[in-house]
This record gives sequence, C-alpha cells and structure tokens, in this order.
Amino acid sequence: MIGGMGRWEPNARGRLEQAALELYVEHGFEQTTVAEIAARAGLTERTFFRYFADKREVLFAGGANLQEFLVSAVASAPDSVAPIEAVAAALEGAGALLQERRDYSRRRQAVIAANAGLQERELIKLASLASALAAALRQRGATGPAASLAAEAGIAVFKIAFERWVGGTSQPDLPQLIRESFDDLKAVTAGK
Amino acid sequence: MIGGMGRWEPNARGRLEQAALELYVEHGFEQTTVAEIAARAGLTERTFFRYFADKREVLFAGGANLQEFLVSAVASAPDSVAPIEAVAAALEGAGALLQERRDYSRRRQAVIAANAGLQERELIKLASLASALAAALRQRGATGPAASLAAEAGIAVFKIAFERWVGGTSQPDLPQLIRESFDDLKAVTAGK
Repeated sequence: MIGGMGRWEPNARGRLEQAALELYVEHGFEQTTVAEIAARAGLTERTFFRYFADKREVLFAGGANLQEFLVSAVASAPDSVAPIEAVAAALEGAGALLQERRDYSRRRQAVIAANAGLQERELIKLASLASALAAALRQRGATGPAASLAAEAGIAVFKIAFERWVGGTSQPDLPQLIRESFDDLKAVTAGK
Repeated sequence: MIGGMGRWEPNARGRLEQAALELYVEHGFEQTTVAEIAARAGLTERTFFRYFADKREVLFAGGANLQEFLVSAVASAPDSVAPIEAVAAALEGAGALLQERRDYSRRRQAVIAANAGLQERELIKLASLASALAAALRQRGATGPAASLAAEAGIAVFKIAFERWVGGTSQPDLPQLIRESFDDLKAVTAGK
C-alpha cells in the first residue's frame, strides 16, 4: 500500500499511527509534537511528513480508505438491491474490516472526544462520507431525496453503532451492531 | 427580546443581521469587516459586539433559538407520541417559523456554501441540534439507541428538506417538505 518509497522503513505508516495515538493518549493531542511522534516511532520528522500533512491527519488518514471502500461496495451492489440495503451492506463490510482494530478505535475515539477541533474534523469526515454515499447511490439510479436520505440515515446508524461498539464492555461485534441499528432505525422511523 | 439596552437603536440585532448578509452576498464573507457591517446598519462596532461575538456568529445566532424551540416542542409532546413523531412535529413547527424567512435563508445558505469554515460551523450546529433532541427524547423516556436514531434521522431529514426548500424554484412550503421527507425516510428505511 505504501509503495516502494518506504522499503527501508518497514511499516513506517503503521508505526507512526501507533506512536501518535500512544502519545495523544498519554500527554494529550495538543501537547504532542510531530518530533515526538517521529522519535517514538524510531523515524525522522521528514518521514512523518511523507505520510501525513500534520499531526491531526494521523487520526483521519484512514477516512479516505473507508470512503473508497464504501463507495465501491455501494457501486457493486446488484441493481435489485434497495438503496438502504446497499448502504447497510457496505457499512457492515466496513465494520468487519474495523472489527480487528477495536483497541485502536477505542483509544482514537477517546482522543477525539477530548478535543473540540478533532470532533469537528470527525463530523466533517462523516458528512463527506454521506455525500460520497449519496453520489454512489445516484450513480446506481436512485433519484430524488432517496439517495441523500439513505446515505444520511446510513451514516447516522454507523455513527451510533460505532459508539456502541467502542463503548461496549464486552467484545461486541461491529457488523452485528450495525445490522441491529439498521433494524432499530426501521422500527424508529415506523413510529415504534 | 433585546431588552432595554437597545431601546435607542430600534431592532439593532435585525439591522445588523440584514446588513451582514447583504455584505457577505455582495463582497464575500472573508472580505467583509465588522466595521463595514456596523456602518451599513447605521450602528457602531461597539453595538455590533453587544449582540454578536464575531462576524461569523451573525449567521449562527438563530441556532440557539431553534434548538430551544425544538427541545421544548419535543419535551411537551404527549407521552403517547413515538420519538420519531415527536421529532417530526417539532421540526414541522420550526419549519413553519422559518417559512417566512425563505429569502433570508436562501441567501444565508449561499454564503455558507461558498465558505468551508462556515460549512463546518453549520455541521457542528446540526450535530449539536441532534444531541439536544436525543437528550430531550431520553428525558421523555426513550431508551437505548432509539433516542439517538430518531434524533439523528430527524436532523438528516430536516437538512434534506431545508435544502429542497431553499433550492426550490417555486415557493415551496417547508413544513410540508419536512413531512414529505419523513415519509420518504420511512419508505427508504423499509427498503423501498
């Protein structure tokens, strides 16, 4: 994924992400510098900036991959599948990929919850995910407000399921929580 | 509403809002200064800062009133009303109040659409509306994810109906668009 340029620094991206998150949890996001992140990862600042624009983007770099995954999952759903089902299947698939990163996700969430600027960035990321999903649904032929509604509702469900997942005391299954939350949404919108 | 302190400056708040929006449309948000807004309104900068923290807040000051209105509408809905219906009724009520401000809302929306920072502020405002609605639903006894889902879905519906309203070429009825969008959401989540 990182191409040839990082061959002499095995998994530099992952090491930087890990180091950054450790430092954000230990000292707070504001207090941590890029120099400290690079040092903790055993890499240089120059290497850091090869992967990330700034220390904030370390927390959000995965968003582009997630968006790409969701959009192509929606695009490849069979024509017969309703918009909300295409969105639900895409999000369950993303949930399965995230499932193994629960510890990382929990700590990331705690860092974000402690910083208003990071919360804003997360909201923007979610809004852009919803726009991308709506565009993918329109590509498949969804018309009128159905595309936007399915996309926005899907992201709301994902957000709520994700919060239940990271906040859970046992080891909950994220795809299952997403599925349950879509069922909950159906019941809620039906006035139950 | 503005109390005794503005008695010698009739409707200072409204004049400042109007002047600010005119200037944002004419010259752009970034290019407009508080001094220019005050001058256009025939008031002083000091008066401006009595009402607004900065030039951005002129566009968002109404958000607090909207939130208060929605929360009290949800709180006063009869116990027998389902969460999504309480949210829908509250938003339709807000739509009726906004209906007469369509021209203002259209121009405000255009200013926000042209500026990334304002779009972020708008997203934050919508997220905080959703949180406030979810809290109001929990106060009424909604449990588990139903409160959050009804609130988040309601705000998504409101956002989409609002966009249809300001973007419409005729003079559409906002409460009716909100009602239709809730019906659309119901159909969408049922997999139609």
